[in-house]
Amino acid sequence: MLSNHLQNGMESAKLLWSRLPNSEAEAEGGAADDLGRYKKNDGSAIESLDYEVIENSAYRVEQAKRGKLYMGYSVMMKWFFSLLIGIGTGLAAVCINISVENFAGWKYSLTFNIIQKSYLAGFLVYMLINLALVLSSVYIITQFAPAAAGSGIPEIKGYLNGIDTHGILLFRTLIGKIFGSIGSVGGGLALGKEGPLVHTGACIASLLGQGGSTKYHLSSRWLQLFTSERDRRDLVTCGCAAGVAAAFRAPVGGVLFALEEVTSWWRSQLMWRVFFTSAIVAVVVRTAMGWCKSGKCGHFGSGGFIIWDISGGQEDYSFQELLPMAVIGVIGGLLGALFNQLTRYITLWRRNYLHKRGNRVKVIEVCIVSIITSVISFGLPLFKKCTPCPEADANSGIECPRPPGMYGNYVNFYCGSNKEYNDLATIFFNTQDDAIRNLFSAKTIHEFSAQSLLTFLVMFYSLAVLTFGTAVPAGQFVPGIMIGSTYGRLVGLFVVSFYKKLNIEEGTYALLGAASFLGGSMRMTVCLCVIMVEITNNLKLLPLIMLVLLISKAVGDAFNEGLYEEQARLRGIPLLESRPKYQMRNMTAKEACGNQQVVYFPRVVKVVDVLSILRSNNHNGFPVIDHTRSGETLVIGLILRSHLLVLLQSKVDFQHSPLPFNSRDGPVPIRHNLTEFVKPVSSKGISIDDIHLTPDDLEMYIDLAPFLNPSPYVVPEDMSLTKVYNLFRQLGLRHILVVPRASRVVGMITRKDLLIEDNEDSPSVELRPTSVRSLCCFTPLY
Amino acid sequence: MLSNHLQNGMESAKLLWSRLPNSEAEAEGGAADDLGRYKKNDGSAIESLDYEVIENSAYRVEQAKRGKLYMGYSVMMKWFFSLLIGIGTGLAAVCINISVENFAGWKYSLTFNIIQKSYLAGFLVYMLINLALVLSSVYIITQFAPAAAGSGIPEIKGYLNGIDTHGILLFRTLIGKIFGSIGSVGGGLALGKEGPLVHTGACIASLLGQGGSTKYHLSSRWLQLFTSERDRRDLVTCGCAAGVAAAFRAPVGGVLFALEEVTSWWRSQLMWRVFFTSAIVAVVVRTAMGWCKSGKCGHFGSGGFIIWDISGGQEDYSFQELLPMAVIGVIGGLLGALFNQLTRYITLWRRNYLHKRGNRVKVIEVCIVSIITSVISFGLPLFKKCTPCPEADANSGIECPRPPGMYGNYVNFYCGSNKEYNDLATIFFNTQDDAIRNLFSAKTIHEFSAQSLLTFLVMFYSLAVLTFGTAVPAGQFVPGIMIGSTYGRLVGLFVVSFYKKLNIEEGTYALLGAASFLGGSMRMTVCLCVIMVEITNNLKLLPLIMLVLLISKAVGDAFNEGLYEEQARLRGIPLLESRPKYQMRNMTAKEACGNQQVVYFPRVVKVVDVLSILRSNNHNGFPVIDHTRSGETLVIGLILRSHLLVLLQSKVDFQHSPLPFNSRDGPVPIRHNLTEFVKPVSSKGISIDDIHLTPDDLEMYIDLAPFLNPSPYVVPEDMSLTKVYNLFRQLGLRHILVVPRASRVVGMITRKDLLIEDNEDSPSVELRPTSVRSLCCFTPLY
Repeated sequence: MLSNHLQNGMESAKLLWSRLPNSEAEAEGGAADDLGRYKKNDGSAIESLDYEVIENSAYRVEQAKRGKLYMGYSVMMKWFFSLLIGIGTGLAAVCINISVENFAGWKYSLTFNIIQKSYLAGFLVYMLINLALVLSSVYIITQFAPAAAGSGIPEIKGYLNGIDTHGILLFRTLIGKIFGSIGSVGGGLALGKEGPLVHTGACIASLLGQGGSTKYHLSSRWLQLFTSERDRRDLVTCGCAAGVAAAFRAPVGGVLFALEEVTSWWRSQLMWRVFFTSAIVAVVVRTAMGWCKSGKCGHFGSGGFIIWDISGGQEDYSFQELLPMAVIGVIGGLLGALFNQLTRYITLWRRNYLHKRGNRVKVIEVCIVSIITSVISFGLPLFKKCTPCPEADANSGIECPRPPGMYGNYVNFYCGSNKEYNDLATIFFNTQDDAIRNLFSAKTIHEFSAQSLLTFLVMFYSLAVLTFGTAVPAGQFVPGIMIGSTYGRLVGLFVVSFYKKLNIEEGTYALLGAASFLGGSMRMTVCLCVIMVEITNNLKLLPLIMLVLLISKAVGDAFNEGLYEEQARLRGIPLLESRPKYQMRNMTAKEACGNQQVVYFPRVVKVVDVLSILRSNNHNGFPVIDHTRSGETLVIGLILRSHLLVLLQSKVDFQHSPLPFNSRDGPVPIRHNLTEFVKPVSSKGISIDDIHLTPDDLEMYIDLAPFLNPSPYVVPEDMSLTKVYNLFRQLGLRHILVVPRASRVVGMITRKDLLIEDNEDSPSVELRPTSVRSLCCFTPLY
Repeated sequence: MLSNHLQNGMESAKLLWSRLPNSEAEAEGGAADDLGRYKKNDGSAIESLDYEVIENSAYRVEQAKRGKLYMGYSVMMKWFFSLLIGIGTGLAAVCINISVENFAGWKYSLTFNIIQKSYLAGFLVYMLINLALVLSSVYIITQFAPAAAGSGIPEIKGYLNGIDTHGILLFRTLIGKIFGSIGSVGGGLALGKEGPLVHTGACIASLLGQGGSTKYHLSSRWLQLFTSERDRRDLVTCGCAAGVAAAFRAPVGGVLFALEEVTSWWRSQLMWRVFFTSAIVAVVVRTAMGWCKSGKCGHFGSGGFIIWDISGGQEDYSFQELLPMAVIGVIGGLLGALFNQLTRYITLWRRNYLHKRGNRVKVIEVCIVSIITSVISFGLPLFKKCTPCPEADANSGIECPRPPGMYGNYVNFYCGSNKEYNDLATIFFNTQDDAIRNLFSAKTIHEFSAQSLLTFLVMFYSLAVLTFGTAVPAGQFVPGIMIGSTYGRLVGLFVVSFYKKLNIEEGTYALLGAASFLGGSMRMTVCLCVIMVEITNNLKLLPLIMLVLLISKAVGDAFNEGLYEEQARLRGIPLLESRPKYQMRNMTAKEACGNQQVVYFPRVVKVVDVLSILRSNNHNGFPVIDHTRSGETLVIGLILRSHLLVLLQSKVDFQHSPLPFNSRDGPVPIRHNLTEFVKPVSSKGISIDDIHLTPDDLEMYIDLAPFLNPSPYVVPEDMSLTKVYNLFRQLGLRHILVVPRASRVVGMITRKDLLIEDNEDSPSVELRPTSVRSLCCFTPLY
């Protein structure tokens, strides 16, 4: 049926396509990605990743290097890179933490020294230091690394879902993120350094994956191993997990965060590598902290790293306590949903009115926010009447009063007597880490008055909303924990008064409050639960945390989407959710395509035609058809725009003859450097305007057969769109061809056709360490 | 192009197919299952699950009940069932634990009383009690519930992968599992109750899902809600998680176990429900334990439930210790792989020589194993010279010596002096839970001599291998922990002697040893890590556990497959692995089908033809074709064997006319009770021999259009088999039609075609609590 030349073309295409390397990546050849060029409604195009092209050519690159030895080397390198990501992210986290703690410690000790003489001078110094730090941060962001603003988690989520927001994984973004978050967190704004650390981990991973930054001449050829998009995304996933593991010293939490929250396509092989990366981070951070214990790191060390150990706290709970805990869950859901809603409005407002006016407005805005924060955090405690210290308990080891800023409860701030403390200053005039430690602290019943907690809650909540979306790196974890633990402690206060039991700790309620607010705002479940357990080092409260999270997430879901989804939507990152939309069930594949005109390429195409077709539309993939001898058309594959652009630019595959290459003459000669097909991360690739062709070139032909993907996924035209959606989403596809119903069935594939025994000396030996379930098998036994 | 009657038929098919209910299940209409009838090599057919049929008809059932109200009710019921599963599994676990502890406690106290007078009489009593308990267990299994033998995890894994081994989820299996494991664990065999508890959880979930057991008249109509296979599998997944959560009191470990180890198709919505079930289990178990604390549960309570708390142990570790820890990892990998290999041989040997001879042999075998176990565990300590008690440390609260059996270290057994203890008896003449507690114990340096540990390791390892595969419920977790902690403690012994540091605890090494053996044998990663942390209640050792697991799994993978995969393979459960086989990369879809003859049905088919086709082969699905007016054939869908059998049996859809139903006459009348299509779990459904047709019936026709699946997944014939495999595995399909290349492309679907905004008042309000990422959206903002 097929004409001869078609048959030949098909064979040569198959020839190339079937020369698949024995790589892990290949093993899931189909489970690729993603998406065409997606137009944001505001007109700017979001660059999407050219997955299929890269894979196509990556295969050949790997093929070129061929052999099992190379395969083993590649697997080894993947593990080596995971190690590097772990070390890099761990060091970045340590560096950020040491800097922040030192800036903050120095700031508070200076301020404290001055307020011994004058509160006004102290305030001015405090405000100016904050302003200077924040200014450094916003300067870096606006001048150098605009993509480093915000938490970065929505963008990373988008990247792993298949949408490459420009610039998020550049070297300058990494630098901006690290130094920016030192400034913004050290400057006392109501934001955290944990979200940025996730972004930092992802940047480190991505830069390693592409072999450094070309722009800053930091690239290295021997590092440029990971030419396939899948490998790069795997590395970024490792980086995210490493970020969480480093931020919270929660290695399992990191793995689960990467699994539950960030990735869109999870492969069980990857889990193992992500797990390894997290373990490395834990070891690196622990080593650095051990080194710092001797006092070499200045103010860092004693209070140190995040981890609010409450393992000395409440051991048990009674059934009566479940009611107030449920109340905490409900409050968390409500306040979390409100937070998402308010931040949405303020982000919209900023985008539409403020940030349009340029960088100067952004800088001024951040400075104003910083001044407001300084005024409130310094000023409000001044109006708070001091409380007498509780009677000293020799065993508890709790000192009262203490100087303000860092390490410990019962801060003496603007108090008349020496035996008094200012409870509002204890949490407000302090770094957030230490404020949380104070809020979580056990054996300090009634340290905080309801009035102070309520004041703090309202003020801090407003500050957190106000700060959200300013042009500095900003995480929402720590502010969320602050807010949550405040109302949690408030509820705890009432529970202690009401139930009058001694074994109830307000700190426990503060922890549950923190979990509930994060659950109500971010809507994470298992990973949040594990993170909370890991940062508080208390496994006994696990069922309670689960309960509170269940309630707060359910309440929050009744109102709006999670924070990251909402922010991704606002930033125009169209995440493809894991389930199809409701109305898809009544649509067919054909209806989804609408009335779009399908633009075909013939197998051998004139260069001038290619150019005009590429200019006339912005499709990202084109079906290629050929004719059988009997004149029927036949779809022989899919060619990608970016692929065509590479062909046009290199010109080496041009031919004078309009006849296809005949495979009887030998294998298709591959005339060009196949790495050309690999598109760098965060770059736009070749544009059609970059291509300059002579009139002679335009008259030549290209045989597309060697370059097309000969078996794209197809669906019949009347398939339900929910099914199509699942196919697209689960396999991470980029294009699906909609074709008419088949006229006959060649065969049926069922489970038994896919249960092939693996009895050659396969290269799985090298693969084993990476696979959760080993490929290796025994010879058949039964 | 289509003929009129074809068009009508298609419309009516689409009509039915598109009347999809707005259910959660529907939302992933495509992500179904699975597999044809798979022939084991030994000839017996494994029943596979008819997923598509059930879905098909389940849709209609739900459609019939229609409406959002029903949807809300159904979601609510899913959560309610999760609650019930949690409570049920928690209670089963408590019940098993109380019984085992009481039997064991009573056994040891009786034996101890007797050995005061005569060691021989004591031994006889000890042996006979063990024998009686084990006999009761093996009797239940062989006579009543053969499917309850073994751990059950491979079978459950198979079920969730799509293979229904007969009888594993029956009510009798549940009963057999509970009482059988009480007998076998109480009888002191070298096996655990944790694997069986996972199976128990799965059984409870499955029975609830199908509304009770019909056979024992325990079913209830109002419970029969979950007619879809997916819902049932979701429940079973919840049950597995509940089982682990109950067995180890490790709720997060349970969720991860279900995610990593058991399920094949994971949906993020499910995670949330699994999480809830685990939390419920934790609460139930905790409540029951609180209730038992007052001494109402006999011997249960003080030592109690599994959880070997080592939170009082080693707090820190130095870099020097990483080397011996790595050694533990390597030992774990080697011994684990050896264990898998030996159990494989012994299972094969049993199957081929022993168990063929019937139940009597099985009973005798278990009795012999029991007697050997009793002899070794009682006899060996007699030959061990007693050790003088260490100098008493008033603070440690450790008493020396103690009476043998349960609770505590330093057991006085066959010792001359009153100030001596027998270290071998401390671990050997004891329940496994308490032996592990002793091995893990901190502040008991040099309690065990290297000689005793080595003796115990060799003997217990042999016993564990010998016991594996006998006809009693048997888990491998606790024996694994026993073996691992023995050599771990042995390494710890050397480390303590070598490094001479005081803060090194042998118990820590025992824990790491346990993790390493489980990692080397079962090859789990994240979930095992979390389970180990949860059962020891010590988060600080997390990075060390991770490290040890990484090494032991890598070492083990170099030799063979994980224990469960190996056992599944031996039992003829053909698990479809998550990655395609190596040689698939060189095959096409067409080659995978081989030369099989595709058997078609025409749209309207004579009953006699249906019968003869069904008799002539054992295919499970058949393409249905129709003719256009121009005479071309067209594939209009796929009909399933089981579906046809229901049609043949009910006869209500027979018609006299050979013409298809015309949709202009109104919607297709559905003439029969649609629940008939729902196949009960663990039953074979209708057989072709059950169908009795009169000669008149045989001359009638059936119009298949309303009953077929109008859009099965298709692949072009020359698609790479790796791609086909991924499609099949990721979407959990059962049939893929291989079709010729398309002649034209109707359209292309890319990401932007699937980003439909959801702006109707969708029913997602009811869905929200179940979705991790809410469906709800705002109106477009940008």
